[in-house]
Order: sequence, then structure tokens, then C-alpha cells
Amino acid sequence: MKPIVFFDSTLRDGAQAEGISFSVQDKLNIVRALDDFGVQYIEAGNPGSNPKELQFFEAVRSLPLRQARLCAFGSTARKGVEPAQDANVQSLLHAGTPVVAIFGKAWDLHVTEILKITREENLRLVTETLRCLRDAGKEIVFDAEHFFDGYKADPDYALAVLRAACDGGAGTLCLCDTNGGCLPHEIGQITAKVCAAFPDRDVAIHCHDDSGCAVANSIAAVLAGAVQVQGTLIGFGERCGNADLATIIADLALKCGYDCPVRLESLKQTAREIAEIANVRIRHNHPYIGKSAFAHKAGMHIDGVQKLSASFEHVDPAAVGNERKFLISEVAGRGTVLPRIRRIAPHLTKQSPETARITERLKERECDGYQYEGAEASFELFIKKQLGLWQPHFHVILYKTNDDFPAPDGEQQSTALIKIEVDGKTLLTCDEGNGPVNALDRALRKALCAFYPELNALHLTDFKVRVIESSGTDAKIRVLIESADRGQTFTTIGVSNDVIEASLTALVDSFEYILSKKENAAWQ
Amino acid sequence: MKPIVFFDSTLRDGAQAEGISFSVQDKLNIVRALDDFGVQYIEAGNPGSNPKELQFFEAVRSLPLRQARLCAFGSTARKGVEPAQDANVQSLLHAGTPVVAIFGKAWDLHVTEILKITREENLRLVTETLRCLRDAGKEIVFDAEHFFDGYKADPDYALAVLRAACDGGAGTLCLCDTNGGCLPHEIGQITAKVCAAFPDRDVAIHCHDDSGCAVANSIAAVLAGAVQVQGTLIGFGERCGNADLATIIADLALKCGYDCPVRLESLKQTAREIAEIANVRIRHNHPYIGKSAFAHKAGMHIDGVQKLSASFEHVDPAAVGNERKFLISEVAGRGTVLPRIRRIAPHLTKQSPETARITERLKERECDGYQYEGAEASFELFIKKQLGLWQPHFHVILYKTNDDFPAPDGEQQSTALIKIEVDGKTLLTCDEGNGPVNALDRALRKALCAFYPELNALHLTDFKVRVIESSGTDAKIRVLIESADRGQTFTTIGVSNDVIEASLTALVDSFEYILSKKENAAWQ
Repeated sequence: MKPIVFFDSTLRDGAQAEGISFSVQDKLNIVRALDDFGVQYIEAGNPGSNPKELQFFEAVRSLPLRQARLCAFGSTARKGVEPAQDANVQSLLHAGTPVVAIFGKAWDLHVTEILKITREENLRLVTETLRCLRDAGKEIVFDAEHFFDGYKADPDYALAVLRAACDGGAGTLCLCDTNGGCLPHEIGQITAKVCAAFPDRDVAIHCHDDSGCAVANSIAAVLAGAVQVQGTLIGFGERCGNADLATIIADLALKCGYDCPVRLESLKQTAREIAEIANVRIRHNHPYIGKSAFAHKAGMHIDGVQKLSASFEHVDPAAVGNERKFLISEVAGRGTVLPRIRRIAPHLTKQSPETARITERLKERECDGYQYEGAEASFELFIKKQLGLWQPHFHVILYKTNDDFPAPDGEQQSTALIKIEVDGKTLLTCDEGNGPVNALDRALRKALCAFYPELNALHLTDFKVRVIESSGTDAKIRVLIESADRGQTFTTIGVSNDVIEASLTALVDSFEYILSKKENAAWQ
Repeated sequence: MKPIVFFDSTLRDGAQAEGISFSVQDKLNIVRALDDFGVQYIEAGNPGSNPKELQFFEAVRSLPLRQARLCAFGSTARKGVEPAQDANVQSLLHAGTPVVAIFGKAWDLHVTEILKITREENLRLVTETLRCLRDAGKEIVFDAEHFFDGYKADPDYALAVLRAACDGGAGTLCLCDTNGGCLPHEIGQITAKVCAAFPDRDVAIHCHDDSGCAVANSIAAVLAGAVQVQGTLIGFGERCGNADLATIIADLALKCGYDCPVRLESLKQTAREIAEIANVRIRHNHPYIGKSAFAHKAGMHIDGVQKLSASFEHVDPAAVGNERKFLISEVAGRGTVLPRIRRIAPHLTKQSPETARITERLKERECDGYQYEGAEASFELFIKKQLGLWQPHFHVILYKTNDDFPAPDGEQQSTALIKIEVDGKTLLTCDEGNGPVNALDRALRKALCAFYPELNALHLTDFKVRVIESSGTDAKIRVLIESADRGQTFTTIGVSNDVIEASLTALVDSFEYILSKKENAAWQ
């Protein structure tokens, strides 16, 4: 059996979700994470939509990819415009991706009422737009918009649109349930008919979750013969979201016996990386990848799981990189933590007393809201501290921040002072800034650079704030800071109810990390 | 066609979710909300599990219900104990509900490996336990635990268990996918076989969402002949949650033509009431009931929906008590903003000079980082301010926050003071807190409640911090605050480089919004 192809649209359809917006660097990081995971196609944006998109397509060309093929997205040419002259088609060509996805109307209602052209004009538009891109050497995915609604209204016309796409050179025919209104039995039946009608093309499925069935719909299409699934890894997308690839991949691989050539054991980790970059939380009850996905609360279930795990768990949590969790009595799992510890201390085994101690401390930290998955630099420092392998380069003796409204001098309303100690010498510095975190950051940098001038090259590239287990203004806050030093970037973390304290913790780690690297001379 | 019966287990299986726990009063309020909505069966708890449960069953007897039948839940009697003598069976009888749900093993693996009894003993246990309750006049729902896994392992034994339940007097046979591992095609096939085998009993379906298919699985069962659907209204439940009744009800009623005798137009409101009582948020992309379920962001979609709403929406949002929403971030021109402006100022037209001015100011605010798509309350205040229709209820004259490390008193490291003015009177208050934002929040509440005691009912339900266009610690920060006042929730926004100032802006809006609502008496 041919492997199932996964086509991720986090960067295009996912970016339509309420509250999601990506910087160019975010997008590059997501491409890298998806490629590492094994996704075969990455739809990376609509180059015609705004200048930031073109900037991204420029930058992504120099990113080495393992196997993913990048895809740019756009519509058919405008009516009356020669495709080669159409601005949108031109930007698709300029984007320089090997693959393009073109969406066209497959529902006659849309053709006549929205595009306001004839049914024949629409067919010609599809064929000609695709042919123009095909002639330029592009691999083409044709997104048949509202395909299922269109098929229900007029099956002959919907199929004629697909035929027009084939004539234009589409390699893949993607059936879109654009408004998310279909149910699995409809999707299965209609997809089977399309697969029978177009045996020489790959059929893809693109679902939305408005009926709560996007996962089941995608699976129904695959069972009916579709070989490509479009979606977004965590299910981001407009309205109720796109089909959630994380769940679909796990269902197809673990329950339906399909060949899904991805690193399934990294599923949770990859999803978390992307969530971190997008600054959204994965809901704790998300199938397979949520914190609670394998959490047992009911006493009987816990008992059952301990007697016979297959009796209460539908799959082995390790298969997707997750772990079992008992809500009442957390049972320690050195086995799961060890691989992470050994990345820093390869000499440790499951039996080492250090492993037990670190596992214990790590669980406490995670209970406190630390999540080291996105913060390798802090994790390295944490392990070294636990093993007594680490000497701090400075101590924060005290700090004070003030925020005054209205600003006393009419300009800056935040000031900070900090006192640090290095080798028995202390230094008190102060600064002002845009907000107390910025003022404290500046004061700390001033103090540290006096002792360690090499820190001048270090700068912040990203600063993320996340409220964990949100409740009120006293909620716990997690701060992630990404820093760069001559091209190398790394991330540190801090957690506190106080955003200033959390930020300072992450800042301190970033300075400590770079100082220890420079000492080891391993740092280039 | 007989109406579909809905059986809600929010109070029993829903309470197994991580982070959920209900007081007796919470449970009574949820029973009332579900009854008002039209749910026919409410599974209210396991009276044998703890004394609080019995206290609830005592209290619920005096609650007048429109049509819902209450159900108590428990297991078959213990091996070797006469059912009438079994403590759990006795507490079911004491609970005094007209209906009881009894779960029993339908998977031979569980019988021999978990219960450690013979297959025949298990059948006898089922029949005898049910008969004892039936003789006491109870209507009985038999929950066949792990039915689908059991059927796959040994169909004859799984059916024998159902037959034993019929012998004991079960009126309803509920097929449970206890570990949530099944997919719709399996559920459909197996349910059809059970319906054929037991034509004189009602067949029910009980699914969990571990494979992301609980909604589709429940629908597949109904299409195969099941007449009762068990789940929880918002999908709460252990691990990945129970089948989400809100989505299932809407799908069955609006897409499959089933008679679902509930107040569908109150679906969103009922779900929000229950979420409020449970102190959880409904995820914004929840099908049908989420804030974003009918939110349009892509420019082309907005254009399309305005031309022909059926072309982009799978159902009419009003059918489930929700509404269409255009995300303001994608504002192209007056046309898109106007409908939202007119909700507040119905007299304005596309040509009014105010419309042009507001559109202009709105774009400036968005450039500053404001995003009103998730913050309708702030948006309403913004429009009213622009139209000169708004009088502030208070002014912040000054504030100061301090963050001191180490904490001067060894406990709280944050303090705040704030001075506000109301009708010419000023008041200076101070407080301490977990971080400066919390301290300032507390000081402001203290001051405002002195003038407006009605604000005591207002509380924060969510607090979100987002760094926009992240660069360094001086990046712009967007704060979103969700507040609730007796079941109604709304969101406000603040933007600043200073997280404290951004939070205060959002807090001030939340107080102003509720004060203006209370004034209008439109607020219940």
C-alpha cells in the first residue's frame, strides 16, 4: 500500500484562526518543525496576500529541508485576465516553491452568485490557470472549494470542475468541505465516487470542524480511497478549525494500519513546539497530545490500568510521545525522563541515584508550570545544577521595579534597580524602560556587561508571555525568552505569579547559559 | 419517527475530567439548566461514592423539573453479595431517582482479568443486580462497559451480557466505547447488529473522544438504529472527554432530520451557563457554541458571506443561539465594520461621517496592536467613546506599583497604590499581591467597590498576555481579560509596552462596561 501523504496548512489556513499571527521567523521555525516530524507537504502561505508573505518565501529558500515540499497557495486568475498576466499567479511563480495549490469553485452556486461568471467560464479559468503554472514546472494541487456541497447540488458540474483541473495538469485533486458542514457517511460516499472517476490522479481530503467531525470525515475519505490528508497539526484554522492532523495521523497509523511515514513518537513534542511558536495552548483534553489524554482519575480506571493497561487505554501513550498520568497518585516514571537527562549527562542510567533525584525535582518543576520542551538552554542548566556541575557566574542580590502613572518625568513610567554580585564584588545599577520588565532587563545588562564585556554580543530575539491555567491576575505566568549570540539562538524559561520575576528568571538563565558556553569554548 | 433521547452525564462522567469538581449547589444549578434546555435524562452521580452525593440526591428531590428524569449511577453488586444486601445497590435505592444506570462488564478480558470471576458469574451478577432494582420499581439503563472492544474480542459473549441485562429488566441497552478507541465505521456496524438482535429494547450509545471521533461515533450509532445518546453537554469527561452533546444535538437536528425535542435556540446559552458553573471556558472554536464558531476572517469569506450567507455557513448561527462575527482585524473598509458599529449605533449608514471617522480610528488602534475581534466589550466602549455617547464612571488619577526582591516582609513582593476619582470625590487605596498586576487589580477593585458595591459580583475568568511582534523586553504587549457577572461573560483588551499598564486598561474597560450595562437595566 502506498503511504498516506500529509499536507499541513498551519501557516496558511491555520493562520486564519482567531488570534493567530506569525512573524517570518515563526513561520521558518514551524517549517523546520514540520519537516523534522516528516510531513510531506507544507502549505506555507499566499504570496499574493501581503509583502510579509513574499519576504518569508524569499527567506525559506535557504532553509535545508529533509523531505518536505513547500507549497504556495492562491486562487484561479481573475476573470478576463490572461493567467500569465494575473498578479496573483505571478506572485505564485515568484514564490519559487516546487508545489502550488490553486483553489477554484466546484459549487455552481458560487460560480454564478459569488464569482458572477458562467459555469463554462469557470471551467476555462481553472484549466488555464493551472496550465500556466504547470508550464512553469510546478507540481499542482487543485483545491476544489465547497466540493461536497457542490456535488450534492450538481454532481455532474462538480466532476466537470475536477476534469477541468486534470486538463490543466493537476496531479492532486483535493476535495474541500470548506464550510465544515458534512458528516462522515456523505464524505465517504462522495469520495469513493471521485476516486472511481479519476483513477489516475491522487485524491486529497480537506475538512473543517464545524460539525465536530473533521477527524472522522478525513478518515472516511481515506477509507474511501483518498491518499492525501490536508489539515493543520494541532487543528488551528478559521471558525472551528481545520482537520486536526495530529489525531488523524495517530488514528490512521495506530488503528487503521496505514503507512504514515512520520516520526509518530515525536507527535506530542512537535505539536508542543508549534503551539509554543504560535503562543497558543494545546487543550489539555486534546486526543493523543493533550496533557490529560492519558490521565486517569476514576479509581476503578486507575486500578484497571495498573492491572492491565490495554484494558483501559486505546493505544500505548508512548507511541505518540505522550505518557500515562494518574491524577490522584502520580506514579514516578524514570524511564520517560531518562532519555532527556542523558542528553546532558550520558553516563547516567535508570538505576543511578541522580536519575531518581532529578526525576523527582523535574516533576516538581513541571507541577510549578515549567515546561522545558521549548527551553533547552534552561533545561541544560537545570540538569547541571542538579548534578552539582554548575557554578553560577553572578548572583542577583536584590532588585526593585517601579511603575508610575502618570510618568514622573512625563516620559518613562518604569524604573528598575538591581544589585548583583560577581566574585565577591557587588554592583548596583539602575535604568528606565518601556515597562518594568524592560527597565529591569536594561539594568541587569548594564551591570553584567561591566563584569563580562563579551555579553554585549548577546541580544534578545523573542519574548513570549503565557498565562498558565488561567484564572485571575494572580495566575501563574510562564515567560520564554529566545536569545541570539552571533547567529546561534537558544531559549530559556521562567515561571512565577509575578511577570517581572518570571522574566528575570528567564533572563538570568540566558546570561548564565551563554557564559558557560563561552567558557567551554565550544561556543563558536 | 420517535424523538432521539439525550442523556447528559455532566454531573457523573463529566466530573471525572481533570480540574472539574462540583458543589451540591453547582449540581442543582446544572440540573435546572439541563432541564430547562430539554434534556430527557440527567445522570446526576454515583450515590455510593461519597456522602456529598447522597446529600445532593436528598436536595434534588425538591427541585421541580419540567421533563428531565434523574438517574443515579452504580456498578453491579459485588461477587458473592446478595444484591439487596450490597452497599452500592442500597445507596442506589436510597438515592430515590426514578432511573438507575448500572454498568457491567461486556468484555470477557475484564471479567476474567479485572473482576477475576467466571464468565457465567458475570452474567448472573448482571441479571440479579438489575432484577433487584427493577423489583424496586426503577427504570433501568444498562451500561455495557467496553462493549465494542468486547464485541470485537467475542461477539457471542458481548451479546450474552446484553441478554442477561434484558433478563434482569433493562429497558435501555447502552453500548459504551469506554476507552474511546473506536472509529465510526466500527461503531455503525456493531450497533446495527445489536439493534437487530434486540428489537424490543432501546439501544443507547456512550462514546469518549480519545480518537477524536466521539461526535461522529455517536451519529454513526444513531444512523444504525440507536435511539438514545449519552454524553456531556460541553464534552467534559475523563481524559479527552465524553461525546459532546451540544455538537451531536445540532448535527442530528439540523443535518440529519431527527426529532430532537430540546430548545436548540438556547444551546449556546445553556452551554455557557454550565461552563460558568463548572468554572471552565468553552474553547472559542467549539463547533456551534464557540465564540469563533461563525467568525469569518479571510477577506474572500467575508465578502462571500455578505453576498450569500448559505454559501459559507453550514447552518444559520441563530438556530443554535450563536451569531455571525466578522473579525475586525481584517477590516478592509466601512462595509465590514458597519454591521458591528450599527449594533451600537443603529442609525449610522455607510455614508455617515461618523462611520468614516470610526473606521479610520479603528485602523489606527489596530496599528497600535489592538485587536477587537476577541474583545467585544472594549469594542462597544470604543464605539461609544467615538460617538460621544459615553461618560466614564471613574478616572484613574495615578497609580504606583512596586516589585521588590527579596520581599521586604518575606511574603509578598508586590504592592500597588491607586487613586481614583468618582464624581469629584477621590479615593486612594493600596494592596499587595502575587505580582504587580495582581496587586494593582486588587487595589483598584477595593477603590471601585467603595463607590459601586454592585461590582462585587464581577470576577475575572480569564487573563491572557500576548507579546505582539516580539522583539525584546520592550515589545508591545496585548492583554485580554475575560470577566463574568452572574453567567454573562465578556472580554476587554489593553495594549502597551508595559504589561501593567496594558492590564490596567483592560481592567478599567471591564469595570466600565459592566457599570454601563447595569445602568441600562438591560443587564439581568
